[in-house]
Amino acid sequence: MKKLSGRGTARHGHLGATGELGAFRFSWILILLLQELSCAAAEGSDVVNPCCDYPCQNSGVCVRFGAERYECDCTGTGFHGDNCTTPEFWTGVHHLLKPCPDTVHYILTHFHWLWDFINNSFLRDVLMRLVLNIRSNLIPSPPTFNSKYEYLSWESYYNLSYYTRLLPPVPEDCPTPMGTKGKRSLPDAKVLVERFLRRETFRPDPQGANLMFAFFAQHFTHQFFKTHHRMGPAFTRALSHGVDAGHIYGDNLERQLQLRLHKDGKLKYQVLGGEVYPPLVSEVPIRMSYPSDMPAQQRLAIGQEVFGLLPGLTMYATLWLREHNRVCDVLKAEHPTWGDEQLFQTARLVIIGETIRIVIEEYVQQLSGYLLRLKFDPSLIFSDQFQYSNRIALEFNLLYHWHPLMPDSFLIDGDEVPYSQFLYNTSVLMHYGVEKLVEGFAHQSAGQIGGGKNIHPRLLNVAELSIRESRELRVQPFNQYRKKFNLKPYTSFYEFTGDEESAKELEELYGDIEALEFYPGLLLEKTRHNAIFGESMVEMGAPFSLKGLLGNPICSPVYWKPSTFGGQVGFDIVNSATLERLVCLNSQRCPYVAFHVPRGNQQETPRKPPTEL
Amino acid sequence: MKKLSGRGTARHGHLGATGELGAFRFSWILILLLQELSCAAAEGSDVVNPCCDYPCQNSGVCVRFGAERYECDCTGTGFHGDNCTTPEFWTGVHHLLKPCPDTVHYILTHFHWLWDFINNSFLRDVLMRLVLNIRSNLIPSPPTFNSKYEYLSWESYYNLSYYTRLLPPVPEDCPTPMGTKGKRSLPDAKVLVERFLRRETFRPDPQGANLMFAFFAQHFTHQFFKTHHRMGPAFTRALSHGVDAGHIYGDNLERQLQLRLHKDGKLKYQVLGGEVYPPLVSEVPIRMSYPSDMPAQQRLAIGQEVFGLLPGLTMYATLWLREHNRVCDVLKAEHPTWGDEQLFQTARLVIIGETIRIVIEEYVQQLSGYLLRLKFDPSLIFSDQFQYSNRIALEFNLLYHWHPLMPDSFLIDGDEVPYSQFLYNTSVLMHYGVEKLVEGFAHQSAGQIGGGKNIHPRLLNVAELSIRESRELRVQPFNQYRKKFNLKPYTSFYEFTGDEESAKELEELYGDIEALEFYPGLLLEKTRHNAIFGESMVEMGAPFSLKGLLGNPICSPVYWKPSTFGGQVGFDIVNSATLERLVCLNSQRCPYVAFHVPRGNQQETPRKPPTEL
Repeated sequence: MKKLSGRGTARHGHLGATGELGAFRFSWILILLLQELSCAAAEGSDVVNPCCDYPCQNSGVCVRFGAERYECDCTGTGFHGDNCTTPEFWTGVHHLLKPCPDTVHYILTHFHWLWDFINNSFLRDVLMRLVLNIRSNLIPSPPTFNSKYEYLSWESYYNLSYYTRLLPPVPEDCPTPMGTKGKRSLPDAKVLVERFLRRETFRPDPQGANLMFAFFAQHFTHQFFKTHHRMGPAFTRALSHGVDAGHIYGDNLERQLQLRLHKDGKLKYQVLGGEVYPPLVSEVPIRMSYPSDMPAQQRLAIGQEVFGLLPGLTMYATLWLREHNRVCDVLKAEHPTWGDEQLFQTARLVIIGETIRIVIEEYVQQLSGYLLRLKFDPSLIFSDQFQYSNRIALEFNLLYHWHPLMPDSFLIDGDEVPYSQFLYNTSVLMHYGVEKLVEGFAHQSAGQIGGGKNIHPRLLNVAELSIRESRELRVQPFNQYRKKFNLKPYTSFYEFTGDEESAKELEELYGDIEALEFYPGLLLEKTRHNAIFGESMVEMGAPFSLKGLLGNPICSPVYWKPSTFGGQVGFDIVNSATLERLVCLNSQRCPYVAFHVPRGNQQETPRKPPTEL
Repeated sequence: MKKLSGRGTARHGHLGATGELGAFRFSWILILLLQELSCAAAEGSDVVNPCCDYPCQNSGVCVRFGAERYECDCTGTGFHGDNCTTPEFWTGVHHLLKPCPDTVHYILTHFHWLWDFINNSFLRDVLMRLVLNIRSNLIPSPPTFNSKYEYLSWESYYNLSYYTRLLPPVPEDCPTPMGTKGKRSLPDAKVLVERFLRRETFRPDPQGANLMFAFFAQHFTHQFFKTHHRMGPAFTRALSHGVDAGHIYGDNLERQLQLRLHKDGKLKYQVLGGEVYPPLVSEVPIRMSYPSDMPAQQRLAIGQEVFGLLPGLTMYATLWLREHNRVCDVLKAEHPTWGDEQLFQTARLVIIGETIRIVIEEYVQQLSGYLLRLKFDPSLIFSDQFQYSNRIALEFNLLYHWHPLMPDSFLIDGDEVPYSQFLYNTSVLMHYGVEKLVEGFAHQSAGQIGGGKNIHPRLLNVAELSIRESRELRVQPFNQYRKKFNLKPYTSFYEFTGDEESAKELEELYGDIEALEFYPGLLLEKTRHNAIFGESMVEMGAPFSLKGLLGNPICSPVYWKPSTFGGQVGFDIVNSATLERLVCLNSQRCPYVAFHVPRGNQQETPRKPPTEL
């Protein structure tokens, strides 16, 4: 009964804090007591699933035997013992030698002189290879569980409609929502969001990420995070599970065929004021997500159906559309005998390659803050064991809800555009043109993601939905994920937030650090010094990200060769892709372009366009 | 004009041989001449695609540039030079040291004393690992081309409806059907089949394979060779592309749910005379392939829709059905808390594991004739680079048309059953029972596959269809596949058949050894001494086979552990699976069971059942 009374008290305290009337409080307590009695009765009739306690450490697999017994399968973990806690010899040596993630991060973000040397020597390749291997080895491949199957099964391997999961769901029959720890009911999601996530004043990212970064993040990830809402949060529409450029070409063949010009490999487009834009839905009848009162001449047809939502997304869609058609022209000049199909398919592989390069060498570079200059070179890991396949995990999706990036309003060409005029307004793009949007977005700071209290009120509902869905999906506690990624579990809320007040509040709500949820854990963890977020987001996000990027078939030894991209010319496009080239080869002039706001020594004035122009 | 006149002569000879009337022959020649003139005209107006000549050696990729130029992409081949013919240093060393396949085969099939030693030492593991690596490295993974895409593309990677292809199709715009060599039209498929494949007298397999083997081959492969005939020969219904036991559980979820009992993980069944058999279609309303006049009480419902065709297939379906339900009982005893779904899914993984073990350790063992005792142990290659994924190639499907295995009639319990009473007659199984069928099939020799003239007349149409389909699919010449598998291309038909008469006939029909087709090449190649087939079938079949078996997710380090199979008990079932246990744990008595007819020293009398019974 200890647990029960503890919970009663906490709930009482919570109600007291929100200050209801005495009479109401009394009846509330009565209901809770009745609930508790019935729960206790149900428990008495049944034995607790021993796996609810997460007894198996170091990625051991918990299997229930009989009714009360469990066994941990420690195969391949490097540990043995009942709970996979005794390290084998080499595991022990490895753990002794391994520096802690914070130390590694500190080294990677300090000592300019050291990195100036490393970045210009063979050590850059050595370290990049190490980063790729260490990160991607944390992701099981082939994939394992999903939201229906908390054990390995053919169905969860085969059925691509599911997001995979790194950790299986909390078993259905546990005493508390998070297993055995914490309270019998989780804090109200709305309360969590309002108290801990609502922005008071905009806090810019100390690493300097700008809106070019924010929109790229959203644009890029929406090719593989496409929850199939009708089926539920366990399912995805993005059956490619990775970088397939489905946000440009559509996530199915029918949509792709609609979007294609069927001539010279190109995509359909319209020309407005001498500039190329995506075509209208009236010309390309595909399903797009627009409000019913949106005028027909503003309804653009884009691979991803929601990319009319924000002009930043529409801008990137426009840039990639222009880039695809530009690549087709280049390929056709080399291969005049090639038909539409071969030009299209080869350009698509070039676009995928360009995307991965920009993501690793500029986007992840910006995100990481590392002084090691990251390198996209698949051949670095050709001699390593690596599975060229990927399955998107719902933890990755959940983790990537980076809505704090969004500013309070949008500054374009001297205008301040509020959300009300920005949402579902594709005319912003056509009115200002790509160049001015790029210019504005490149100069405007994005918000810091970690540290809490930085989500614009308009977007709070998304965070709330994430929390609700993660509960429906029975996502395991934050500390279980810490352990899965070889991080020390937090022992207190204070250690976790580094702030007494919020620690106390969270303690009251959750009751136990072991019951803290995954998504609030990521967003409320203390940030690293001058960083966009805390340790966990980096250490959990990077493995999913790098495994997904390098796991693309184009990165395999079978594909990674000039002929795959139409010969050396196409391969060169992939190998020289940058955000700047993406913009400047597809616009009239070349504004300041980067994933960060201009830094002290940054060239700010528009430069000469690249020689290709 | 040399080629043209050559072709005219051959066609003339061919017509003469089949003996049409003179007048008809004359008009036929006229039509051909007109055709030739128009072809020549078309050619004159166009440049020949330089890739029609297969200029790139050693797996270099031919890419056409401009109209007349090509480039070979030699990346990763170990060769360089215009046509990838100059070996790099280590490639040269490797080639110098590598023994030829026939020598390796000779060693692997002789020297009992040597193999008795090796099989009982650590060398068995060393060699097995070598076999797995060498074989599976020949299969590109991720997969490459398909019948629509002769170049790498996202669509051919992503769209699982296609069979993949090891070599791209012959380009559409080549001077001859096989590229540039051979005649302008290929020999009549019917003529090929009648002259070279029709059985005169039954020739048993010298290696002793029996009908248990033959039906296992057919039964096992029909889970991943399921051409989608409505879509055409380029497409498959078996979207798992490997050993998923879809022939037991159905190739889609709907069918699986119909076949399941939804209690204790089991499959539905019926009991006849105290024995378990597949249920009736009237109980399990799934699509099965039966003649319209088949009585309802003979229409069994099985995962694979054609397994009512032959009692041998129905027998194996029955055995696996019983085995699945037996495994469910074993698992339930261990895990009383598990529900139907977990019992079903885990039993399925056990069945897949059992299948792969039986295939490698008994079926492939029999086929190979190797004295090295093959071993199914995925951990042998855990430290090697290996992709745990598979895509079925249409060359593998084509290659596996092993209809010469089938006898002239079927001998069961002293009865000789002709085809007419064997086809679509599930009552044969229920009448004799599993034991007598096993006994009969185990004692009856299967036919030798290679060497020609051994297909039963009833099955000739299948071979003819294979040839026709391979033409529709523009499968490259046999010699191109020889090169792809590191075999020396044949320089003459005589070298190929080892028989002057058939060499001469084939020369007349094909005109050039470089134009010999893939499937006739495999079936008509001279067999190895006392072997079931020639060098090419082994050297091309084994890589596809082993890559497919070991590429199964259950063989990956992530899956290959006791918990995946419900704990040690389930893992033990996988690790001890044999054909004999499959039969004897699921029948009343234990007859002689093997994939070969009894040998001199073979125990012939029924033995005691295993201790589990």
